[in-house]
This record gives sequence, C-alpha cells and structure tokens, in this order.
Amino acid sequence: MILHLNNNISLKTAIDISENIEGKLIFNDLNKIIITSSKVKKVSNEIKKYVSDEFILDSDIQLSSRNYIKETRKVKINNIEIGGDTRNTLMITGPCSIESRNQIKECAQLLKEIGLTTLRAGCFKPRTSPYSFQGLGLEGLKMLSDIRDEFGFNIISEVKDASHVHDVIKYTDIIQIGAKAMYDHGILRETGQQEKPVLLKRGFGSNLQEFVQAAEFILSEGNPNVILCERGIRTFETKTRFTLDLCGVSYLKEYTNLPIILDTSHAMGYSYGVPDLTRACVAMGIDGLLIESHPNPQEAKSDASQQLDFKEFKEMYESLLPICEAVNRKII
Amino acid sequence: MILHLNNNISLKTAIDISENIEGKLIFNDLNKIIITSSKVKKVSNEIKKYVSDEFILDSDIQLSSRNYIKETRKVKINNIEIGGDTRNTLMITGPCSIESRNQIKECAQLLKEIGLTTLRAGCFKPRTSPYSFQGLGLEGLKMLSDIRDEFGFNIISEVKDASHVHDVIKYTDIIQIGAKAMYDHGILRETGQQEKPVLLKRGFGSNLQEFVQAAEFILSEGNPNVILCERGIRTFETKTRFTLDLCGVSYLKEYTNLPIILDTSHAMGYSYGVPDLTRACVAMGIDGLLIESHPNPQEAKSDASQQLDFKEFKEMYESLLPICEAVNRKII
Amino acid sequence: MILHLNNNISLKTAIDISENIEGKLIFNDLNKIIITSSKVKKVSNEIKKYVSDEFILDSDIQLSSRNYIKETRKVKINNIEIGGDTRNTLMITGPCSIESRNQIKECAQLLKEIGLTTLRAGCFKPRTSPYSFQGLGLEGLKMLSDIRDEFGFNIISEVKDASHVHDVIKYTDIIQIGAKAMYDHGILRETGQQEKPVLLKRGFGSNLQEFVQAAEFILSEGNPNVILCERGIRTFETKTRFTLDLCGVSYLKEYTNLPIILDTSHAMGYSYGVPDLTRACVAMGIDGLLIESHPNPQEAKSDASQQLDFKEFKEMYESLLPICEAVNRKII
Amino acid sequence: MILHLNNNISLKTAIDISENIEGKLIFNDLNKIIITSSKVKKVSNEIKKYVSDEFILDSDIQLSSRNYIKETRKVKINNIEIGGDTRNTLMITGPCSIESRNQIKECAQLLKEIGLTTLRAGCFKPRTSPYSFQGLGLEGLKMLSDIRDEFGFNIISEVKDASHVHDVIKYTDIIQIGAKAMYDHGILRETGQQEKPVLLKRGFGSNLQEFVQAAEFILSEGNPNVILCERGIRTFETKTRFTLDLCGVSYLKEYTNLPIILDTSHAMGYSYGVPDLTRACVAMGIDGLLIESHPNPQEAKSDASQQLDFKEFKEMYESLLPICEAVNRKII
Repeated sequence: MILHLNNNISLKTAIDISENIEGKLIFNDLNKIIITSSKVKKVSNEIKKYVSDEFILDSDIQLSSRNYIKETRKVKINNIEIGGDTRNTLMITGPCSIESRNQIKECAQLLKEIGLTTLRAGCFKPRTSPYSFQGLGLEGLKMLSDIRDEFGFNIISEVKDASHVHDVIKYTDIIQIGAKAMYDHGILRETGQQEKPVLLKRGFGSNLQEFVQAAEFILSEGNPNVILCERGIRTFETKTRFTLDLCGVSYLKEYTNLPIILDTSHAMGYSYGVPDLTRACVAMGIDGLLIESHPNPQEAKSDASQQLDFKEFKEMYESLLPICEAVNRKII
Repeated sequence: MILHLNNNISLKTAIDISENIEGKLIFNDLNKIIITSSKVKKVSNEIKKYVSDEFILDSDIQLSSRNYIKETRKVKINNIEIGGDTRNTLMITGPCSIESRNQIKECAQLLKEIGLTTLRAGCFKPRTSPYSFQGLGLEGLKMLSDIRDEFGFNIISEVKDASHVHDVIKYTDIIQIGAKAMYDHGILRETGQQEKPVLLKRGFGSNLQEFVQAAEFILSEGNPNVILCERGIRTFETKTRFTLDLCGVSYLKEYTNLPIILDTSHAMGYSYGVPDLTRACVAMGIDGLLIESHPNPQEAKSDASQQLDFKEFKEMYESLLPICEAVNRKII
Repeated sequence: MILHLNNNISLKTAIDISENIEGKLIFNDLNKIIITSSKVKKVSNEIKKYVSDEFILDSDIQLSSRNYIKETRKVKINNIEIGGDTRNTLMITGPCSIESRNQIKECAQLLKEIGLTTLRAGCFKPRTSPYSFQGLGLEGLKMLSDIRDEFGFNIISEVKDASHVHDVIKYTDIIQIGAKAMYDHGILRETGQQEKPVLLKRGFGSNLQEFVQAAEFILSEGNPNVILCERGIRTFETKTRFTLDLCGVSYLKEYTNLPIILDTSHAMGYSYGVPDLTRACVAMGIDGLLIESHPNPQEAKSDASQQLDFKEFKEMYESLLPICEAVNRKII
Repeated sequence: MILHLNNNISLKTAIDISENIEGKLIFNDLNKIIITSSKVKKVSNEIKKYVSDEFILDSDIQLSSRNYIKETRKVKINNIEIGGDTRNTLMITGPCSIESRNQIKECAQLLKEIGLTTLRAGCFKPRTSPYSFQGLGLEGLKMLSDIRDEFGFNIISEVKDASHVHDVIKYTDIIQIGAKAMYDHGILRETGQQEKPVLLKRGFGSNLQEFVQAAEFILSEGNPNVILCERGIRTFETKTRFTLDLCGVSYLKEYTNLPIILDTSHAMGYSYGVPDLTRACVAMGIDGLLIESHPNPQEAKSDASQQLDFKEFKEMYESLLPICEAVNRKII
C-alpha cells in the first residue's frame, strides 16, 4: 500500500505513522510517501486523516506499478531526458570493456561523429572465470571521466559487486547494475540513496516479478530514477547466447511505469544478429538501447564476437532512423 | 552431403548411386539430387563423374542451409509469393478456431476490407485437456473451403496429428504443422510428398537445430516449399504465455534458406502485447505474420485472451505500413 | 466432475445423461462413469438421482487425480503387477534400438540371467535427423515377438507416430508412447481404446499439468492402465542431456494415482551417471525403471553414449538390492 | 595450467615466475602453486626447471577438476570431516530464518536429541521484495554464536551481499554463499582469503560450468575448503519451486574434486516432497544435506511451506539410516 501524506504534516508525525504501520518513508518533490507491504490493504481511520491519497496494489510491485503512476516516468540524465512524453530513444554505445585511452577515444569520436550523447564502457568485468581479463577497474573509470570532460558525453559503467560501488557512483552519470548483481541488496540500497539514474539489468535467470521488485528496492530507498534493462534470459536454446525477451518487454510496458532500455548485444551474443534485433526493438517504441561497439572487435579482450565495428554500427544506425520516424520516436 | 547429378543420367543410374551411398534421391525442376548423412564428406571417383555439383555440410541441416542455397527460397502460394527477391510480408489472420459459418464469414470480410489474401482458422485443435472444445474437424475444413470459393482467399489450417492429415492436405492451400506435431515423422513425410507449401511451427520445447531438421524431413521427401514459423518457446517466465525467440529468428535468417513467419499471438498469449511485438517482427524484415483475430474474442471457444478484435487488428495493421516502408517491405 | 452412475441404470439412460451434460461415458469393472469438464461443479437434481458417487475436481486432472482414487492404481502386465499395494519396482531394460536378432538375444540372456521380466527395445526411432538410422520398424517388432515366445518376457516398444500405432499395439505387452508423441491425440485416443498398459513418457518441454492431462486423454477413452514415465526435461543446462525432474516425481506421487517409472538413461545421456541416478530413484520408492543396456554400447546405432554395457548393468543392479530393502521394495 | 613449484624455491622467485606468466600464486601445505589461464598449454624451459608437477586442463575448471586432484577433497569443519575417504554425510538442519532466541533454542534441542553436529539459520535474508521480513541480521548471528557456546554445534549462515560478509565470516563455522550471491566476486575473493570452509550455493539460473568456476574464484585465492551445494535450478516447471538437478550432481561427482551438499527444501519448495527427495540424495552417495526444519512451520516468517516440523524431520531422519547403510555412508 502506498500512502501520500498531507503536505502540512511534520516529519516527526510522518515517522511515527511509518513506524506504526511498519512502512518505509520516502520523499519526493511534492510529498512524503509511506509504502507498506502489499499485504496491507487498509489503514485505521486514525491514520487516514493524515493521508491525501492511497494506492492499494496487488503485489509488491508498487512504486513501479502503472496502477500507481499511470505513465512512464521521466528520467533526466544531466542535459537529456527519456520517458514521460519525450518520445526519446537513448542510443548508448561503446565497448564491452575499456582497454586503453586510445581505444576509448576512438569510441568517443564515433559518438561525436553521429551526434550521440551517452558512452558506455565496462571497468569492472563480471567474468565467470577467475583467469580471464577482469577489467581496468578504477583506472578505467578515471579515463571515462576524462572523456566526459573532453567530449561532454554522459558516462555509464557497471557495478558488479559492492567493493567498488562508491567509485562507480562517483565517476558515472548513469549507474549500471549488472545482470549478475541484480539481487545484490547492498548495491540496490546504496544506489537507492543516490539521485543519479540507475540502469538495472535483468538477471538472466530472473523472472519479471523479481526484476521489477529489485527496482522496487531502489525506488523504496528514495531514488525515483530507475531504468529497466532487458538483456536476454537464459533458455534451453544454445545457438544464441541468450534469448531476448520482447514478450517480457510488452509486459513491462503494460504494467510498470519505468523506462525500458534494451541490450541486444548480450542477448544475441553474435554481431550478425544485432542490427536486425535492434531494428525490432526500436519498432516496439522503447526508451533506449545499449549496443556494444568496438574499433576492432577481433582484438577485444571480452565479448569479441558480439561487438559491432564502427562501419557496422553506422550502417545499423542509419537503418534505425526511418523506423524511428515510423513509430514517432527520436534517437538521442 | 548433397550431390547434384548430371542432367543426362538415367533414373536407374540415379537410383543405383543413391542406394550405393545410402542417400535419399529427390528431384527438382532442374536436377536429380541425392542427399546423404552429413557425416559423409566425400564420394568415390567412380560416383564423382556423375556429379555436377557437390555440397559438403557441417550438420544435418543440409537442404535448408544457406551454405547450399544462398538466399531465401521463393515459395508460391497459388497467386502470391514470398521469399526470394519479393520483399513480401504475408499477413495471415483469422480466428484460433472456426466456430461457425457466421463467425468465419465475418473474419473473411475483415480480410476483404483490408485487402489481405490468406485466412487462417483451426479445425482440429491440439488442446491439452480432453474435456475442452476439440474443434469442428472436417466440417470446419469444408466451411473454410466454401469461404475460399466465395472470396478467393488462400486457406491455411493446422494438422495436429496423423488421423486427419489427408483432410487438411486436401482442403487447404498451406498445410500448417502445429507446434505439438513438429516431431511427427508420419506427418512430416506425408507433407513432404506433396507440393503444397507447408508452414512448420517450432515446438515450444524444441531447439533451433531440431526445428530446422524437422523441416529437413519434409525437404528430403521432395517438397521444396517449406516455411518456418517461430511462435514462442517455453522458458521460466510465466507472466507471458511463451517467449518469442527473435534471437533465434536472427539465427534462422543467417543460416537457413527458408522463409520465416512469426506468430506473435501464441508467443504473447495476451492481446495487449500483440501489436508491439508484431511491429518488432515487421522491422526485422520477415516473410510473414500469423495473427489471431476474432469478431468477439471474449466469446471465443479457445485462446480467448490472445485474439485481437477487428478494431484492434485494423489499428495494428495501419501502424505496420510505415514500418514496412522503412524496411522496404510490402504486406500482402 | 466425475459421476459414478447407479449400477442398475441402462446403457441408454447412461448415454442420454452423458450427452445431456456433454460428458464422456466410460466403463470400468463396477461402474458406468461419466466425466465432464472440471468447470462443471454440480448437476441437476434430475440427474443426481442416477448418481451413486460424485467427485468435484479442481482441474482437468480428474481420473488421474489422487482426490478421485486415493492410492496408486494397480496395473497388471500379464503375469506381473505394479502399483497398488504391491511394492514392486519393475526393472525394464534392453537396448535403445533393436539392431539385429543376435543383439536382442544377447540382451534377453542378460534379463534371464538376472531374473528380470520385461524387455525394451526401440523399433521406430524418433530421430531428429532424416539422415540417421530410423530403426528396423515392423521387422524389429516381429523379432521382439519371437523373443517373447522363446523367453516368456513382457515386451515394451515405442510408438513415435500414428503410422505404426497398430503394429506396436499388436506386438507389445506395454505400449510406450514416446516423449515426442506425448501430445499426439490420435495415438492417445487409439491406445485409450485398448486394455493393454500404456507407458506414457513426459515430453521434455511439457509441464506436469500437460503431462497428466495427456494421461487423462487415455483414461477418458476407457483404458485404466496408464503408467507415467519421467525421462528428463529440457533446461538451460547442457553438460547433461536433460534434467531428471525428481521434484516433479514428488508432485506426481502426491497428486496423481498413476504408477511412475523413471528413465535415467535419457535424462543423463551419459552412462557414467546412470547408476547413481538410478539408486536415487529407487530410494524415492517408485514403481519402475527404464534403463538402456547394450551388449556393446560403442557400436550402438543410436544413443551410444548413454547405454550401459552388461557388466555395468549388473553392478548397478546389485547395488540396487540393499536400497530396495531399505525402502521395502522388491525389484521384479 | 597449474604448476607445482619445487619445494626449495624462494618466495621471490615464485612471485617472479607468477608475474612472468600472468598467473595466480597460492600456497598449500606442501607447495607453492601457480595457476594460469587454461589457454596456456605450456611454459618455457626456463620456467620448467622450477616446476615439479604440471597439470594442463581443458577449461578454467582447474583447481576444482578431478583431472587435478583425483578424489573428493577432504574438508574439516572443526571437529568433523567430510569428503576424502570419510564416507560421512553431514546433515545440516535448522530454520530458514532465525526469528527469536526461543525458536533457535528449540531447533538446537532437536539436533542434540538426534545427535547432529551442525546448525543452520539465516540472518540476512535475500528476499525478492523490499517489503518482506529481511532477517535479524547481526543480532541473529550473535544468537547463533551463543547457541554454539552452549551446545557445541558448528554454525552455518548465509552471506547475501558484501555489506555483512565480515560478520558472517566472524560468527560462523561454515560460510554459506547464497544462490543469489554466487557471482559476487567481492564475496568470493573475501572468503577465498579465509581458511574457514565455504559452502557455495549454485545460482538457480547458473549452469554447471559457471558454478564450478565460481568455486574456482575462492580456490584460486588460496582457500582450499570449498563445498558445492546444489539447491535446484529454475526451469519451465512451476508446480514445484525449483528443479533439483541430480543429473548435474552426477556431473559434479565425475568431473570435480569438491564435496557436494544438497538442499532439497529450496528445490522442492513444499515440505511434502522433501523426505522422498532427501532419500534419493542419500542413495546417490553425497557429502551432506541442508534441510530446513522449524518448530512451527506455519508461523515461520519466511519459506513457511517448505520447512519440516520436528516430527516430520525425525521420521525422515529415521528413514535415511537404512539407506545410508545400503550405500555404506554414515550421517553425522
């Protein structure tokens, strides 16, 4: 249950009410808000007099529910916006891993040439083997920060475990929570206490209920700027790396109020399929894309097979423009 | 291994060679063709002199492989064509089950109004419960045949098991093999001995290798007119009925030479998601769509939740036209 | 809903009632029985007076439900029995495919030596490739029949599609419906009209509800002798061929009244794991086992990797005896 | 590649070699050991002269591979041992969550009565909803510690994210890494630098390769005491909570050298199935069990449906003893 408290009540009263009903108290621009377990279906008359609005929800998908906020939330990332009534589709691109200053600069120039705004690159890599390249770490984040200073891009990079969450929060404009960290309550809570936008990736073994409830952890700590990212789920099919769940995206668009970004590179795992899948995503009318590109994919230290080279990326980008127009969207 | 025999060799010689290497002998317009297990990687010099072309394939995806035929096969369905260089996207629609003469006539009028060519309706329903509506059977096929006579549409209907395969072959223009019958060798062989196009649905628990090899059963009996249909696979996600595997479609487009049709209705299971998913499919550049529509979905005797009403269908249809234009395709 | 009609009512009345409530009429030793859709929750007083017992069920798992018959059904296979109060565990073994008269005779001698009763061998193989060995077919069935005459074993062999269902019914003592044919209504109905026991394998992409409802097709045609066989489901794990679903077996034991046989060979796909898994199954207290064995697995024409040689089989068999004793079961 | 260095070489030389070949240097009782990526298949002659043994492995399953150590590792937990030649099966039980001092004391008395050695209880609960009971946290760990002092049990409790890893390390005798934290490199590395045994649960969406490679993270930091725990994977089946992967356990027994413990409670999700599944596991010959029990499951604050009450637990326990004897195992 979500309760909007009357504007004029004191913080102390709000805290008292919250404790009384075992709820979580958060604040937004306009309101003090209390959220309880969804099992709570009504409050006492005593409390009701402090309440301006109440929302009774079916499941613990509450703050993220379209039954609570009836449209997609608008999320501001410095100078740009997605969601709400913007009809923007944010094209995020860059390499899987930052490997060197030169490599990331080449990527930055690709973005500049096309007119894109947001650069991605991994610094802390969630590899499954302890004997593979683990990323440049903090050094990589600082390189990305320099790129921001030089080019004016927004920077997104991934936190894979709590040991470096503060660094990622500090150096990026969008905090990416990786698929393997989706259940990490330490990270969810920490990023929930920020205001910076958080891009939350769906765990490849996680169902939609769990995915949205992970977002709910962040929202219920007070950060309203959560973006969902579908990046493929694990199924019995092995010819492709994962299975992009566009049925799930339809569900998320219908039942949640969070912007949705799609990562076709990880879903497919092979560059040959990325352009077709990306065209499909754009036609669905989604809020953004996360596409891996690399100046020289064959030499990439991670995910070599799925990254587009710059020529492939530009060709794909050109092909997206008429589809965007067909569905009345704009790539930013 | 696929061998194209020289034009001038006799049927008897062809049969002798085929038996000698344990192959299957088929005929197309131009050639006598022998296919052996893909484990066979070369033939004797004695045989080689009868061979004009040979194709060595990695797996038992052979006749359907893009390493054999380097473009999508053209399939002719009476007066229309898909695949090849046509850039046609065939929009097949109609109800899940034919329920009455009136119902199917209403559907036919929708097609006529929009200008579509191909009507679907199930007569033999592969229900999971013995106590549910099992379809009108042969009577339904005859009603569909009457509709063809009146409206000039092509008719497609599903064979679910071998007990009625001959009826379906007789009364339809495209023979649909249902997802639950994908492994039925009796049906695969029987339809392989026809010339009518066969739309083969992927089993929801079948991987891509098995799916294409099922098509290979039909092709290797001599029927070159096979169309693949992806309709969602079964995964751990339960908020949607199945998971439409567009990564798999990318794979099929890259590695096989068969036209691909997508069924978004069964994949999603809920009408609210069908338009978005269908827009996505069209943007991928596929050869056709299979969409369930019904004059009154609430009263449908099967799959009530996933069928579009006519207003929804028409709105969706309108929205597909600019996307088709963006990807240089034409809906027929 | 299941209705037991009074003993003394006429066949005509029974048929009238059945048609009146759109039910299926079947007969067992004692009763005329009508089954309707489980959506029917009550009948008119007019009909009630012909009814001695009524069973209202939650889902279309009806005749197979433990809410209908409160113990495991006893199934008689000529001279042996499983289920009921027998505490028998039927050990079925033999090769994946019958390959020659010699091969099957060697297998028969293994059974004789150990004292087993039931021989399996596939004649019609549901291969995924059209270019692999497809089985000896009818010729194989006849060889099996000769073995029965010579050794007195019960014979089980698989029907994979309707084209040979009559042959399998004729030549075997237990009709096996293969995993890929689980949804084949033609076969389900045909075997439902027999009295011979039917071993129904779970489709590897089929959930438990669908599996039991497939059994319900057979039961509702009048054949009460249905045995369920779990043989592994398809999951994301690829190190093993399938994933044996023993949680599912627990469910089946709790909620259904059908005997359960486990096929560990197909589940695992590798012989090294078969003995351990088989010991696990026996400890669960199940009604039978289906294990592939072969005089020379390396030379087998199908499923070479998963078949036990005779030495391995005998060692495994010996290890099962004390576990059987521990759970108060007897291998037959 | 794993290299055992000669006994007499200096630490400095070992470090130099390790850096030279980009390996990880660890120590065990007898050796200095360097592990490189499994892509490295040989070293220079210069280095070879410092090497007493070398092991070339197929994949990054290296220290955990049975091709490296040819038997199950022995793991010592204070006064008890599992693995090696012990033939012990460790029965760990206790409630899902510690809820109060009284509740845990009742559980302790059950263990004492039966003669068990190891108590489990969760303090930091990895709930999927932010609005559910999140556990007693540090306070719970301290209660468990008091129980150890009073009863002499070994204590196991779960770390779910890095925010409390140090507390769990400090207060427990076996550190449990939960299924949702399996990929958390921060935790894996931290526990790898301890000597305490670590029980690593398989992520429910993780394949066996990833699972064992997660263990490899711990081993390659120097902690040799890693125990694997299979607790069910996520599949399309929804009648049970997860699907216990005993085929996977067969694989792990064949290819790895780590002891294996099975959690049937989480796999099944319903108490009715736990005894049967646990009997199956024991018959496979595994190293331990993790079973949830609770003085009053109906009132449990988490996982109420899957916990056994004490009567059920004792009955199950009794039934395990003859099976243990049949497979020559001893429950401790």
